[in-house]
Amino acid sequence: MNNEIQFSERMEGVRPSAIRDLLKLGDDPGLISFGGGYPDPSLFPIQELNQIYSSLLVPERSDVLQYTSSNGLPGLRAKVAHRLTRDGMSCTENDILIIQGAQQGLDISAKLVVNRGDTIVTENPTFLGALIAFAPTQPNYAPVRTDEFGMDTDQLAEVLATNPNVVMIYTIPEFQNPTGVTMNLERRKHLIELANKYNVLVVEDSAYRELRYVGEQLPTIKSLDTEGRVIHLGSFSKILAPSMRLGWALANPEILDKLSLLKLASDTQNSTLNMNATLEYLRRHDIDEHIAKIRPNYLRKLNLMLSTMRETFPDEVSFTEPEGGLFTWLTCPVGFDATNFMKETLLPQGKVAYVPGATFFPVVQEPNHARVNFSGVEDDRIVEGISRLGKLLKQTL
Amino acid sequence: MNNEIQFSERMEGVRPSAIRDLLKLGDDPGLISFGGGYPDPSLFPIQELNQIYSSLLVPERSDVLQYTSSNGLPGLRAKVAHRLTRDGMSCTENDILIIQGAQQGLDISAKLVVNRGDTIVTENPTFLGALIAFAPTQPNYAPVRTDEFGMDTDQLAEVLATNPNVVMIYTIPEFQNPTGVTMNLERRKHLIELANKYNVLVVEDSAYRELRYVGEQLPTIKSLDTEGRVIHLGSFSKILAPSMRLGWALANPEILDKLSLLKLASDTQNSTLNMNATLEYLRRHDIDEHIAKIRPNYLRKLNLMLSTMRETFPDEVSFTEPEGGLFTWLTCPVGFDATNFMKETLLPQGKVAYVPGATFFPVVQEPNHARVNFSGVEDDRIVEGISRLGKLLKQTL
Repeated sequence: MNNEIQFSERMEGVRPSAIRDLLKLGDDPGLISFGGGYPDPSLFPIQELNQIYSSLLVPERSDVLQYTSSNGLPGLRAKVAHRLTRDGMSCTENDILIIQGAQQGLDISAKLVVNRGDTIVTENPTFLGALIAFAPTQPNYAPVRTDEFGMDTDQLAEVLATNPNVVMIYTIPEFQNPTGVTMNLERRKHLIELANKYNVLVVEDSAYRELRYVGEQLPTIKSLDTEGRVIHLGSFSKILAPSMRLGWALANPEILDKLSLLKLASDTQNSTLNMNATLEYLRRHDIDEHIAKIRPNYLRKLNLMLSTMRETFPDEVSFTEPEGGLFTWLTCPVGFDATNFMKETLLPQGKVAYVPGATFFPVVQEPNHARVNFSGVEDDRIVEGISRLGKLLKQTL
Repeated sequence: MNNEIQFSERMEGVRPSAIRDLLKLGDDPGLISFGGGYPDPSLFPIQELNQIYSSLLVPERSDVLQYTSSNGLPGLRAKVAHRLTRDGMSCTENDILIIQGAQQGLDISAKLVVNRGDTIVTENPTFLGALIAFAPTQPNYAPVRTDEFGMDTDQLAEVLATNPNVVMIYTIPEFQNPTGVTMNLERRKHLIELANKYNVLVVEDSAYRELRYVGEQLPTIKSLDTEGRVIHLGSFSKILAPSMRLGWALANPEILDKLSLLKLASDTQNSTLNMNATLEYLRRHDIDEHIAKIRPNYLRKLNLMLSTMRETFPDEVSFTEPEGGLFTWLTCPVGFDATNFMKETLLPQGKVAYVPGATFFPVVQEPNHARVNFSGVEDDRIVEGISRLGKLLKQTL
């Protein structure tokens, strides 16, 4: 063995992440893991999908196993366009690209505009999967302070005024991953105004948008976009099932055409079968009714988690109170190391896991946070796991 | 509308291709299209898959709709490893990465080693989808003359001796796309010897390998690889169904680990459902028996096509006689333009399509060729379409 293959420069930033190890941890049934970003599998419409796959997999429909258009089934794109139009983003099927989950939208959006050394603005902290997707384009980051109202657009204005290399603003306006916070309307307007002023692309990741449990839905940033500079990304993963690997990108024609070329280059197309099955699901069933059934379940889990935190956590630990999505975000006193605590105390003594927060910071890692998921954990395990976490935090702090 | 988004430098090479337009053409039922690379849909095991999806989509198996390991289901990786080991490439599930068709393997292999301006060696002509996948890494190309025995490795030796920027050799050793030719054993040995000498990565695209209709199977280049420098790519698209979007990469541990990071970054994972269904298919059915049923069908179509070509083509037009795969390759006299002929004569007068050959040449486009697919066309339409093509070629030449 004498392998000396020289890897490309872009591989410098492509390194193993905590997500991979944590997905593995989640497989241990003895562990109560708040580490994933999983929907509750008991809420999947599995019987409806069974009937749909059965009716599609018949000799007259052999087209469902064949290649199809790289942009995605026209019927499915039309259904997505209809839903987005209803949500304030007027569009047709020609404005929609079907992608392999919103994650693929991150990969191709970065490829579209980022040259090595260009700057991407993100919330601070931000979605780890986005940092992983962007890494091969070798960006720099300008993370912007993020509070309970989302990205601080006054700080964004300063960043844009002083950094001419910003080519993309990446934001998760609703129930952000990892913090759970939602950007208010004023900041959404300010953000698009700034993007227009400095001629920057905006990537709006709305993967959790339809999982709002309390409060009023706010307009998407795309709906405020008068210059066609927002790529709006969404996903069926949280409202139908992750296994479909289906998401969508909405963008203006010039951008969408480039994204569709990058999609074609990446993997030719999505699964024809899964696209047909999802289209049939949307034809035969009311997905809004399905989502309306999911929401109270997740709200119950969220409330159970927050009330258990209030009961069992020491006063020094604060946590966000999200209006939707999958996550809450813990902040422990400065000096506390959530990674060490998990390794040395929480896992061995409590058999409980979260995602240490440091990994979500693009530049300066703050060690005193953790991301905690409530959607994928059974109710009694939420109470048990959070209680154990609270007890061990009290012992340690 | 005042959009002035600046695209990245890599977008310079990312342009619309003939494949997209031709996939659209194939949808016109009045047209006899030899343009696709489609398997015969009547050979899909659709009833077996119906039973499998039915048995998987039950409440006890909600895991099939959930997220899973980014590298792919361990059981499926083990089945692939078993088949590759039997084919002379000793490996375990840990050496296998499940990918979104072999196409994704091309995307991530280029990302792995190609810096802007690095050189990729290909057969001349080569697979258009590979040129599309490689484009975002902004490579240069050194296409190597390709004859009836595959890539001319004597010319490869000259290229490697004179071009220090070569970082990858891309080859389709069996039933090459677009020419249908197979690399002989001597050249396979010479190729790996040269790759070792010049320390170059080899990407072996074996998407058609199991579709051999006549002649003896040759060892893969991976099976001759003593230094762990070959990435071997394969796919379920042609032996099961393209709609699964399932392929595999076999590589040494260091390379596989990097590829799996790039896969994670691109789209998180393949469809858990389709992976489970394919695993179940491999458990319940003998896929070799299924492939053994496909082969005589494609051989019959191939022979029908070749005999119709012999009967109806003018003497000036030659064509390859592949031992497997999906394509034959036409060579018309120098001076003939296959693109113009298709647009001005073949489509309007004959209602027949192929893929003009020019698009498959990475550097100097030869206009006098065409790629002709036989696998996806009904027998009577092969005879009718090739006869019309022959008649119009005779009229024109």
